[in-house]
Amino acid sequence: MADQWIEETLYDNWGQRFRVKQELARTTSPFQDIVVFESESHGRVLLLDGVVQITEGDEFVYQEMLTHVPLFTHAAPRNVLIIGAGDGGVLRRVLEHPGVEKAVMVEIDGAVIELSKKYLPNIAGDAWNDPRAEVIVGDGIDYVTRAADASFDAIIVDSTDPIGVGEVLFTDSFYEHCARVLTAEGLIVNQCGVPFMQADELHETSLRRAKFFPHVSAYVAAVPTYVGGFMTLGIASKGKSPAGQDVAAVRVRAEAAGILGKTQYWTPEIHVGAFNLPPYIAKHLPADKA
Amino acid sequence: MADQWIEETLYDNWGQRFRVKQELARTTSPFQDIVVFESESHGRVLLLDGVVQITEGDEFVYQEMLTHVPLFTHAAPRNVLIIGAGDGGVLRRVLEHPGVEKAVMVEIDGAVIELSKKYLPNIAGDAWNDPRAEVIVGDGIDYVTRAADASFDAIIVDSTDPIGVGEVLFTDSFYEHCARVLTAEGLIVNQCGVPFMQADELHETSLRRAKFFPHVSAYVAAVPTYVGGFMTLGIASKGKSPAGQDVAAVRVRAEAAGILGKTQYWTPEIHVGAFNLPPYIAKHLPADKA
Repeated sequence: MADQWIEETLYDNWGQRFRVKQELARTTSPFQDIVVFESESHGRVLLLDGVVQITEGDEFVYQEMLTHVPLFTHAAPRNVLIIGAGDGGVLRRVLEHPGVEKAVMVEIDGAVIELSKKYLPNIAGDAWNDPRAEVIVGDGIDYVTRAADASFDAIIVDSTDPIGVGEVLFTDSFYEHCARVLTAEGLIVNQCGVPFMQADELHETSLRRAKFFPHVSAYVAAVPTYVGGFMTLGIASKGKSPAGQDVAAVRVRAEAAGILGKTQYWTPEIHVGAFNLPPYIAKHLPADKA
Repeated sequence: MADQWIEETLYDNWGQRFRVKQELARTTSPFQDIVVFESESHGRVLLLDGVVQITEGDEFVYQEMLTHVPLFTHAAPRNVLIIGAGDGGVLRRVLEHPGVEKAVMVEIDGAVIELSKKYLPNIAGDAWNDPRAEVIVGDGIDYVTRAADASFDAIIVDSTDPIGVGEVLFTDSFYEHCARVLTAEGLIVNQCGVPFMQADELHETSLRRAKFFPHVSAYVAAVPTYVGGFMTLGIASKGKSPAGQDVAAVRVRAEAAGILGKTQYWTPEIHVGAFNLPPYIAKHLPADKA
């Protein structure tokens, strides 16, 4: 084991590799191949179907931006639906918002939850035991199809890329039901890949969201292990546009929530500034909706 | 050659690899190993001592942010000194500013210039032939040691990391001479690595710059092939602080220069917002100077 490496298999022509300190788990669930290992460089790493999902070293970037941006964009989110995110990191950040009364998390693969609880306990912290949390092992699209109208203020989709088990989370039908189960000012966020490497993903999913939401936008985050410059997080809103927020107002909200000063990536300035897209990314958004 | 890969050797415990379409040059100059190859994913790639310096695919991010930010931060830069940057990409962006009367570029390794002219002609474009350009093959620290006081408005240091041939460009002596040869409102920019992977680099070089400049700050850019989230660009100024600029004023400058709307990453909003550092990066700056 002195010189074991694990290579990500996401792209055909480019790759990243990690030197392995210890392999912790390697299994095949009914949905995907799952590997957890301790790296020399990034702490523990979770791979699904050969693709890096989260590392202990940089998880804060993705989790903070995927959670705090929508929950401080919505005026007063009380009911939050999380789809995917089996490691529990989004659930933990959602529950940091004292105004959240209920967080329902629907993860299709119970093995991801179990392995995360066992090998990545720091990512979710105590979130699993919070009385406001309801964790469901089930199909996200099935859940939103059956959910009542206007039952959530925010939906956070922390999926894999639109291949394999995560593919249905990028369809018309999924977005249509999400729009229906959201309240009047409701919004949905989902990861849209790294445009430099996966240009079509942001474009195609933005067009789909635009069919069901009046405001379709995106913001960026520089996640170390989602390699290729900025990743984009697509955001679509039934109420007002999420772009052009006021830094001071976001800061007031974050201070009242006890979150200001406790983050490692997210700040009120970065929250607002993340909607300023580089032209090479902005060109992938639908022009009339961006 | 059907399945040839080139692996970057920058880090001991993490690496990126590129599938090679064609190897174009492989040589050892008096200063370093140089490889140029055509990748399947990023166009042509230049490696020095095994470290990715530039790719055709993403060079615009680094070049635009390394050049346009200082030149639109200084009120009216006329004389610009570029150190390193043998591919010519910074020179090209500097000369896009019509107010620049003279751009002196000092690159220690003539082989990098020659190979870039031959294999990466799109990166510099016509910059080599611009009458305002003076290209010197020589030692950057030697050049600033001999340069006259107050002879440049801006210095752009596009060096390798502080190992090997680039190490002297991170020393006290180098920064002291840079401060001397800059005009009263002069400023210097240099790459400070990727803090997530190279935390000490920003911290240590910021402390050094703080000895000779009243304002020491940094801004970020998400460069796809400088992997690990944001890279930081250190900026130090003899005049006013470079942070807290006005977006509208930067836009007026960029429009007058004919640069607005012609960039792929830099915009006035991104220019100003790039000084808002995530807390995990801000903590590496000297507190009293940041």
